[in-house]
Amino acid sequence: MINFRDKCIQLLKERGVTLDDIADAARFLQANYHADLKKEELLESIHSVLDKREVQFALMTAVELDKQAENKTYLDKDLEAIIRRDEGLYGVDEVLAYGICNLYGSIALTNFGFIDKKKYGIIEKLNGDGKDGRYCHTFLDDIVGAIAASAASRFAHGDRK
Amino acid sequence: MINFRDKCIQLLKERGVTLDDIADAARFLQANYHADLKKEELLESIHSVLDKREVQFALMTAVELDKQAENKTYLDKDLEAIIRRDEGLYGVDEVLAYGICNLYGSIALTNFGFIDKKKYGIIEKLNGDGKDGRYCHTFLDDIVGAIAASAASRFAHGDRK
Amino acid sequence: MINFRDKCIQLLKERGVTLDDIADAARFLQANYHADLKKEELLESIHSVLDKREVQFALMTAVELDKQAENKTYLDKDLEAIIRRDEGLYGVDEVLAYGICNLYGSIALTNFGFIDKKKYGIIEKLNGDGKDGRYCHTFLDDIVGAIAASAASRFAHGDRK
Amino acid sequence: MINFRDKCIQLLKERGVTLDDIADAARFLQANYHADLKKEELLESIHSVLDKREVQFALMTAVELDKQAENKTYLDKDLEAIIRRDEGLYGVDEVLAYGICNLYGSIALTNFGFIDKKKYGIIEKLNGDGKDGRYCHTFLDDIVGAIAASAASRFAHGDRK
Repeated sequence: MINFRDKCIQLLKERGVTLDDIADAARFLQANYHADLKKEELLESIHSVLDKREVQFALMTAVELDKQAENKTYLDKDLEAIIRRDEGLYGVDEVLAYGICNLYGSIALTNFGFIDKKKYGIIEKLNGDGKDGRYCHTFLDDIVGAIAASAASRFAHGDRK
Repeated sequence: MINFRDKCIQLLKERGVTLDDIADAARFLQANYHADLKKEELLESIHSVLDKREVQFALMTAVELDKQAENKTYLDKDLEAIIRRDEGLYGVDEVLAYGICNLYGSIALTNFGFIDKKKYGIIEKLNGDGKDGRYCHTFLDDIVGAIAASAASRFAHGDRK
Repeated sequence: MINFRDKCIQLLKERGVTLDDIADAARFLQANYHADLKKEELLESIHSVLDKREVQFALMTAVELDKQAENKTYLDKDLEAIIRRDEGLYGVDEVLAYGICNLYGSIALTNFGFIDKKKYGIIEKLNGDGKDGRYCHTFLDDIVGAIAASAASRFAHGDRK
Repeated sequence: MINFRDKCIQLLKERGVTLDDIADAARFLQANYHADLKKEELLESIHSVLDKREVQFALMTAVELDKQAENKTYLDKDLEAIIRRDEGLYGVDEVLAYGICNLYGSIALTNFGFIDKKKYGIIEKLNGDGKDGRYCHTFLDDIVGAIAASAASRFAHGDRK
C-alpha cells in the first residue's frame, strides 16, 4: 500500500512548497486570535490534514493538472489555455479547494476565502511564479491555501481528533 | 463546560430518535458494500460524528426550529407555516444537513441524497409523524439522515480518527 | 401568493439594512477589478439574488433566529446563550450563508470569506451593534455578507440570467 | 470567443452522451412529482444548465481527466490507476459534480445523491462501459448525473431565470 501522505509531501516539495510554508500561512490566519502562536504548533494540524484520503487525492489531481498545463500536453487546447492563464472565471481550482475546506467546517471556508484574496506568503509566491509562463500553479495555490485554511480551522477547534 | 454530546443524545431521545435507529439507517446505506455489517459496528462512528461541535450546534438549532414550529411560537407566521408543512422548496433543512455531511466528504453527501429520497427507517417515521400536524420534524429528519450518512461514510473510509 | 422578495427587503429594513448598504459591500468586493464601478450598477444583481427562493428562506430563518435570541425566547437556553454571544465556533450562521453563496459559484464563496474576515461597512455595523447585547445579528451579518458576495460574483460573471 | 456550450454538447456526444439521455435521467428524478412530465420539457433546463460557465469548465476538465486516463498519459501513474479503476474512495469526481449541483441548491444535491446510487439510464451505461477497461468515465458519469440533477432541480423550482 502506497503511503499517500509521504507522496503528497514529496509532490509539494517538487512543486516548491514546504510544510513550513504552509504552517506560515496557517499561522497568518490564526494571528488575530493567538498573537504568539508559533508555526511549529500548526505543523501537527497540517500533518493531520494531509492524512485524509480526500486531501491526498485532491492534491495529486491538482498537481497533475498543473504539470500537464506546464508541459502543454492537454488534449483540449482551449482548456489548456484557460488553465495556463489562470482565468478568473475558471473556478474548478477553487472547487477542489472547497472539497478540502468543507471537511474542516465553516471556519476553514472563511479562512480560505480570506487567504485566497490576500495571497499571503507561499500563495503569493505560487501565484507570482505562475504568471511568468514557465510554471503553472493554477490549481496548487488553491490547494495549498485550502490546506493552510483547514489546518488553522482544526487548530481553532482545538480538535486533536 | 456543558457536555454537548450528551445533551444532543438527550435531545434526540426526547424527539423520538435513538442511536440505534440512526445505526440502523447507517447500516442500510452500507448494506451493498458489507452485507453482514452489524449496526453495533456503526455505533462507534455515530458517537464520533456526535462529538463534532458543528454537528452538535446544527442539531440543537434544528430541534429548536422544529419545536417552536410545533408550539406555533414563530414571530414570522409565513415562515412558521412553510416549516410546519415541510414545503418541498424550503431547503434550509437540507442546508443544515449538508453542513454536517460536508465534514465527512463526498460519500456522506451521496449517502444523504439517497436516504433523503428513500426515507428509510427512522427518517420515514419522522417524516410520517411530521405529516399529522401534531409534530414538526422538518429539520430533524434531515439532521438524522445527515448523521447516518456521515457515520456510514466515516465507516467506509475506515477512518478511526 | 406572498411576494417573498418584498417581504425580505422589508425584514432587512426592520433590522437596519438597506439595499444600498449591501450594494456598497458588493462594490467593495469588486473594487480591485472595476475601480470606477458604481454601487447603483450592483443593485440589479442584488435584486436578482433576492429573487431566489433559497435566499429568501435563508434570510427569513436567519432573522427569526436573531430576533428570538434578542427576545430571549429560545426553548434551549444553552443555544440562546451561544447565539447571543456570537460564539466563534458556532458556525450554523456561516452554513446558512454558504447555502446562499454556493448558488453563485466559487467566486461568491471566496468573496464571502474575505468580507466576513474584513467586516466592511454594513457587516462591521451589524457586528458592532450585536456586541452591545441589545441586538443580536449573529445570523444577519453573515446573510448580508453572503448576499453582497453573491451579487458581486454574479456581476463578475456578467451573468444577466 | 468560443461558444463553450456548443463545445460541451460536442464533447458529450463524442463521449457517448446525448442531451436526450440527460433529459431522460432528469425526468426519472422528477417522476414522483410530475408523473406525465415529458423529457422534452426538461431539455430547456438542460440547455440552461449547460449555459453556465462553471458547468462548462467542470465538464471540460472532467472529460480531459477521463480521456488521459483512457490514453494512459498521466504523469502520476498511481493517480492514473486510481482513476482508471474508479476507486470508491477517490471522490474528486463527486467534488466536481457538487460544484455543479451547488449552483442549483439543495434539491439538486439530493437528486444527485439519489441518481448516483441508483445509476439510472445513461449513468448506468457510462458506469458499465467504464468497467471493461477500454473506456474511462470515472468523471463523466458524475458530471452527467450532476447536470441531470441540476436540470431537474431547476425545473422543480419553476425557475425560468
